[in-house]
Order: sequence, then structure tokens, then C-alpha cells
Amino acid sequence: MPLTKLRQAVFRANSMLVENGLVVLTWGNASGIDRERGLVVIKPSGVSYQDMRPEDLVVVDLDGNVVKGNLRPSSDTPTHLELYQSWPDIGGVVHSHSRYATAFSQATEPVPCYGTTHADFCPGDIPCIPALTREEVDRDYEGATGRSIVRYYAEHGLKPNEYPGAVLSHHGPFTWGKNPVDAADNGLILESVAEMAIWTRLINPSVQPIPGYILEKHYYRKHGPGAYYGQKK
Amino acid sequence: MPLTKLRQAVFRANSMLVENGLVVLTWGNASGIDRERGLVVIKPSGVSYQDMRPEDLVVVDLDGNVVKGNLRPSSDTPTHLELYQSWPDIGGVVHSHSRYATAFSQATEPVPCYGTTHADFCPGDIPCIPALTREEVDRDYEGATGRSIVRYYAEHGLKPNEYPGAVLSHHGPFTWGKNPVDAADNGLILESVAEMAIWTRLINPSVQPIPGYILEKHYYRKHGPGAYYGQKK
Amino acid sequence: MPLTKLRQAVFRANSMLVENGLVVLTWGNASGIDRERGLVVIKPSGVSYQDMRPEDLVVVDLDGNVVKGNLRPSSDTPTHLELYQSWPDIGGVVHSHSRYATAFSQATEPVPCYGTTHADFCPGDIPCIPALTREEVDRDYEGATGRSIVRYYAEHGLKPNEYPGAVLSHHGPFTWGKNPVDAADNGLILESVAEMAIWTRLINPSVQPIPGYILEKHYYRKHGPGAYYGQKK
Amino acid sequence: MPLTKLRQAVFRANSMLVENGLVVLTWGNASGIDRERGLVVIKPSGVSYQDMRPEDLVVVDLDGNVVKGNLRPSSDTPTHLELYQSWPDIGGVVHSHSRYATAFSQATEPVPCYGTTHADFCPGDIPCIPALTREEVDRDYEGATGRSIVRYYAEHGLKPNEYPGAVLSHHGPFTWGKNPVDAADNGLILESVAEMAIWTRLINPSVQPIPGYILEKHYYRKHGPGAYYGQKK
Repeated sequence: MPLTKLRQAVFRANSMLVENGLVVLTWGNASGIDRERGLVVIKPSGVSYQDMRPEDLVVVDLDGNVVKGNLRPSSDTPTHLELYQSWPDIGGVVHSHSRYATAFSQATEPVPCYGTTHADFCPGDIPCIPALTREEVDRDYEGATGRSIVRYYAEHGLKPNEYPGAVLSHHGPFTWGKNPVDAADNGLILESVAEMAIWTRLINPSVQPIPGYILEKHYYRKHGPGAYYGQKK
Repeated sequence: MPLTKLRQAVFRANSMLVENGLVVLTWGNASGIDRERGLVVIKPSGVSYQDMRPEDLVVVDLDGNVVKGNLRPSSDTPTHLELYQSWPDIGGVVHSHSRYATAFSQATEPVPCYGTTHADFCPGDIPCIPALTREEVDRDYEGATGRSIVRYYAEHGLKPNEYPGAVLSHHGPFTWGKNPVDAADNGLILESVAEMAIWTRLINPSVQPIPGYILEKHYYRKHGPGAYYGQKK
Repeated sequence: MPLTKLRQAVFRANSMLVENGLVVLTWGNASGIDRERGLVVIKPSGVSYQDMRPEDLVVVDLDGNVVKGNLRPSSDTPTHLELYQSWPDIGGVVHSHSRYATAFSQATEPVPCYGTTHADFCPGDIPCIPALTREEVDRDYEGATGRSIVRYYAEHGLKPNEYPGAVLSHHGPFTWGKNPVDAADNGLILESVAEMAIWTRLINPSVQPIPGYILEKHYYRKHGPGAYYGQKK
Repeated sequence: MPLTKLRQAVFRANSMLVENGLVVLTWGNASGIDRERGLVVIKPSGVSYQDMRPEDLVVVDLDGNVVKGNLRPSSDTPTHLELYQSWPDIGGVVHSHSRYATAFSQATEPVPCYGTTHADFCPGDIPCIPALTREEVDRDYEGATGRSIVRYYAEHGLKPNEYPGAVLSHHGPFTWGKNPVDAADNGLILESVAEMAIWTRLINPSVQPIPGYILEKHYYRKHGPGAYYGQKK
């Protein structure tokens, strides 16, 4: 993806966060990567979505050096970079403080898979990444945040393309995808299933997860070689 | 209803799902039937509501064969077809993952009738259809989904025109009506009464259903030969 | 208020119900009275708010006879008329099925006075009117509904201008005011304090009502001879 | 800040309350101060936001005397003035009855710090100011309200610039900031973290506050000499 097109996609993904009600003020950021050139386009730090123009987006290399742009990149840039470095198949990353997903972060609980809406998204609970240690926070907070996600996925055998989002303890959600717009869509999906999980538990406090065979049916009718949801590509 | 008019009505019903906040992304579909010609018009699978044009709607026969259209029909088409085949009086079907109705689906509970808003819609609890068996899921998931609704209604003596919607265990709501727009209205009503049931139970966890004589008064002032709500037709 | 002006006010009040999110589909109605001529202007029954024009409003006398208009008046007209007949100081009545107020109706509980937002509106709990008996429902449901509100206020020494709204068991809220727009404002206020009461109880299940001396301070800084809130009239 | 510019900022702050869904009807007010001239610009009392024009804002001196304007100032003016008099560094004050913050007021509980969204705003629980005594209410309600906030902050060693908002028992939130727009932003932030705290507790009733070292990391990456969030000023 050439840089101009990537810039447009990242701008679009950031705008989607606002349109979908996932961000308040400046609380969120979307990025995208040009894998060939190793460059990441990301939202500038603390700039309001209303004032932001496509040319305000910042271009950084994979070490976090600003390559283009007059503004500082998002303070969460090191988290995005860790994900891009560890997961070669993702093309976009989104972070927000969307209310219901963040509530699961704050409750330090995974989002349980109660239905097919969730099963269409990923084949199990949406993981809750444990809190960083004091040392990790002190030394390199934003980088350690990214590494903690990657480590948790590795340790639990979770594939980033199957579980394209997680809630971080005490913090909020990160999602990713094939490209920035896909990552923003995944942020909206995570928020929606988190919301429905809250109301589900309110109705039935002893609710059980969706049976495994229904979960798998829904996940695999939409993902993988046997998928038949959507249009042929 | 001629096909052009039906196409407009189905397009309108799909748009209503978006306007009424019942769908996120592509999660929902509305259809309508031309009974004389035995043709069903339905949303294409996985197409975003923003991009969809009336001519993108797909025409299928009652066996699911595409008669007109370049896109794949909704993956839920077999469910719609089962309802049309079993219930000759319905003219439109809507499926969504609207948040509160879906929460009842996920909680695997019927929506209890707590008030006149609900009683204006149907004369009792909104049914919760039990989950399919593993075998049903494996063999013909979407068709079996439709048959499970029809079977539940038959076994429990429920008339589809009196109970124009249900929540499916672990999944979400299906509603139907005289025509596609009517089915979409019923989707909005089901969602609204589901929401109010949640807040009602939060206020009073031991709340009782509406007394039967008030329920019946409201239902029959709006439905059937003695109805006096609305304008003379 | 001349009839043309009253018609405009009633139309405006009905529109406010939609703008403020208090009604879904056709679930609600606003009316206003011309006391000199003994005529009431009210929403037609079952007509959608989108399609309704000012000239569709129906004029009835205090016995419910249609004086002007081609459509049937709201099926709740007898309830409005009972309130106008018993309470000479009110000029407008509004009924809706707004979600949070209706949840209190369905929970058959008054809306407790937890704070100054509520105390600015009325000097105590918002009453929950008991359900009608089977006989009342069978004989004259809508008229008996109005009489049950009036009777409850009389028996409990509540003044309609001090408590300009109530929730009806199993049903929904009725509000009233000096004129139709005032009644619609009161519908919005009742809905807002009902919503906040739900979240309050969720935070603190053993919450106590606002202390009486703060309640009175707020109520009387806004109402009565010593009021100093707002502009001099 | 010259008076014309201050008037614009106060008008903007009041408009933000509406745009952000923090006020219903006339329930809220924003003000700003010209420190050099000792003049405060504030919303007029009981005027609807729709009808309000910049020239309707009222200019008062620090004793509450109207210096300019034909309308009465907000009945909460003495509260604003107490805050301006005691805290020389603040430039704007906002009061609202926003739903979730008000729910904490009504529940008479501080808003607990459950996550980084909150920690980005202030370094601990958002204080709940105790109710006034009967005597305070009777003698000078609005003035005493302001003094109770100032006293509580002094007694608990809270700095107004570190904790730029509080919930008042049985009442609602007050927030403040460097200028009126900043105070309005803080009103939105308080409301957002209050909402997320409610859903957090609903998910996990025994949830613990955010660990102190994460709280401090987030607070100090955004505030104070070592801050690196946002753009260089």
C-alpha cells in the first residue's frame, strides 16, 4: 500500500472511531503499516479528531523515529510498533477507550463468548491481558504493553488473526486487522459484543457460554477455507 | 406485490434496521416475498448497508436458487425460506443482532411480558427458541434454524401473526410481518420491549408479569375484530 | 389560547416527544385544551409521527365527541379528558412509553427522590398509580385510567401542579402542565430522573432519599412565591 | 482574556454541554473569569440553550453584582464565585446534571479510579462532597455549596488542578479548568469515567482500584513536568 493511500486509510480509520462512538475527546488512535518500506502512519498525540487533517498524521519507522510530520506521534506508538514487529500479517492497529470494552478491561475479565455475534468475530473469549509489573511500567510502559499482548498470545496459543483484539487490564481495548479500516471495524465489533455480554449477564447471572459446536459453526462459516458468508473475493 | 415494489419495500426495511440502530456493520437482513410468483427478495450477504443499492438485492425462488442478481444472497436465506414456506400469511422477515433482544437470546430466556407496551405487540412472553442440536447444526444449519422456529410455534400453539417475533438461543431475534416494513417495525418493537424488560428487572428483581386481564385488554384493543386502536382501514 | 395556536402547540409537543427520544413508532400522544371553548386538540390514533401534519390533529369536546378532523382521536383520549375535567389548572397532557419511566411503571414502583434534579421537578417521589381492577378495565379502560390517577392524587393529598406526572402500574408515564409544551417538558424530566434513579441504585443498592431540607430548598427555589430560579415573568 | 473573547469561550462551553449530551433542558451552566478585571461571565438562569445568544450571557463581579446584561445570572452563580475566589488558578467552571456523574452524586459515593481513562484525568478517586447541613442550606445555599467544595479539598489535601471536578452529594457534578472550554471538557471526562465505573462494577462487583503504579504512570505521562502526552506547547 503506497503511503498516500495508507495515509487516507489511517485517516479514515481514525474518523470511524468518532463516527462509531468509540472515542471521547482524543482518547484513541489508529495506525497502519506499509510493510515494504517498513513505515507506520499514526495519529498525532493529543490532537482532537475535529481539528485533525490527513497531513497531520505522523510517519514513523519501526524503531519509532519520526520520518515525516511536524507533530509528535501518539504516545501509544511503541505499543503499535511491537504488534507490527511481532505479527507480520497485520496491517492496522486501533486503540480506544470505548465504554463497554474498557469496562471489561477495568473489571480485568475476558469478554465471554455468549452468542453467535461474538462467534462470528473470534472462536472463544476475547482475552484479557494481565497488568504489567511495576518494573515493566517504569522501564518502557508503552513498549512493554505491546510485548505483553504478544507474549500472552504466544503463551496461550492464540493466533492474532483469529483473535483480532483484546482488552488490557485496567486500560482498554486494542484491536488489529488486515488494514486500518479492518482494525477499526474490529474495535466496533469488540465494543458491541462487550455491551451485549453485560446485558446478557444482567438478565441471567448464571448464563453459560455458547455451546462449542454452535460457536465453531458460526466462526467457520465466516472465516477460513470453508467460509460461505459474504461475497466471493 | 409486483417485484419492483417488493424490491423497494425490502430496501426500505433494510434501511430501517440501520436508522433504528438495530444493526452494526452487516449484521442483519430483511426480505420480502411475492406470493404469486413464489419469489423472495433478500439482502446480499456481507454487503455493508452504506454501499448497498436497491439493485444489489437478490431474488431467489423458494428453493433458494438465485433468479436474479449478481451477488450471493444472505447466508441466512434458508431460514427466511423455511418461515415463508411454513407460514403462508407472512410477507416479510427480518433478522438482526439488536443489542437487547440479542441479550435475551444469549441469556436463553424469553422476553417476559411486564407491561402494556409488550401487550400491544403480542399476547404473552416473546418465545425463546431452544438451541439446535449438534446434528442439526452440522447438517443444514440455516434451514434447521427456520424449522426450529416453526416447530416450536406448532408445539406450543403459538400463531405467527400473534407472536410476530422470537429470540433464538445463543443467536438473536427474528421477526416477521405482513410485509417487509411491518417485519422491520416488529424488530424495533421487540428490541424496545426487551430493553424495558431489562431495566424493569433491575428496578424490581422480583417483578411479576402484567396481570392477564390488562394484557388481554391491550392486545385486543389493537388486534383482531374488536380493535379500536388506529384508523379504520 | 385560540384553536390555531393550540393546534400549533399540540403539534410542537408531539414533535418534542420524538426529538427527545421518548417515543418509538406511534407510542405516545400529546394534547392541549382551550378552556374557554371546552375543546381539546389531540394526536390522531396510530398515526406515525413522521407522516403527521398539524391538520391531522383531532379536535374533541370534553365528552369525547369529534368536533373537527377526519381521523380518530388517540385511543387514550378518555384518559386525557378525565384529567382535564378534574384538574382545571392544567392545559396540556402527554403520555408516552419512554423507556426508563415505563420501567418503573412495569416494576410497579414510584420513582424515588434521590437528588436535586428530581427535587427541582416535584417535592417527593413520583407516584406509581395502582393497577385498575378487572372490572374497571372491562367497563371503560381509558376513562378509568384517568379517574384512577385523579383518585390517587386526591386520596394522597397530591396536588397536580406540584406532582406534574406519574407512572401507571404495568403501563407508562402520564405528565401534564400549564400547556402542551410544558407537559412535554415534564415528560422529558420524568424520564431523566427515572433513568438517573436506576443508575443510582445500581451504584448504591441501599441509597437513601435526599434529605428533606435539601429537597425543599431545591423545590421552593424554583416553584412558588419565594422562587428565584429563572427569569422574572 | 478580554471580555469579548471570554464571552465567546463561555458561550462555546455552554454549547459543548448540549453537544456532549451533558444537559437536559436548562440543567447546567458554564462560566469563565477575567482575572484582571475581576469579572465573571455566566449563563443566565433558566434560559434554554436553544434560545440563548452570546449577548444573553450575564457579567457579574466577584460579589455577584450584575455589571452587564438584562437577565438574571444562573442561580448557581454564588457557587461559581466561591470557587473563583478561593482558587486563583482556575479560569472556568461548569455545573451539570449529567446522568452518570449525577448518579454517583445521588449514591453519595466518590467515583472510584478503576482504570487508565480515569488516571489520565486525576490521580485518584473523584471526590464526593458531603451534603450541606440544614443550617448551611437555609442561610446561603449556593454560596455554602461552593465553600463546602473548597473546604473539602483543603481538608483532604486535594489540589483543584489535580482533581478538576467533584460530585456533590444528592446533587450533581462541578468541574473546573484553565478556561471555560477546559472546564467543559472536564465535565465530559468526569461523565465518561463515571459511566465506565458503573459498567465495570456490574461486570465485577468486587473489582479493585487500578494499581497505584499504573495510576501514577498514566497521570504523570499527561500532567506535570515529565509529561510526554500531547504536543509541545
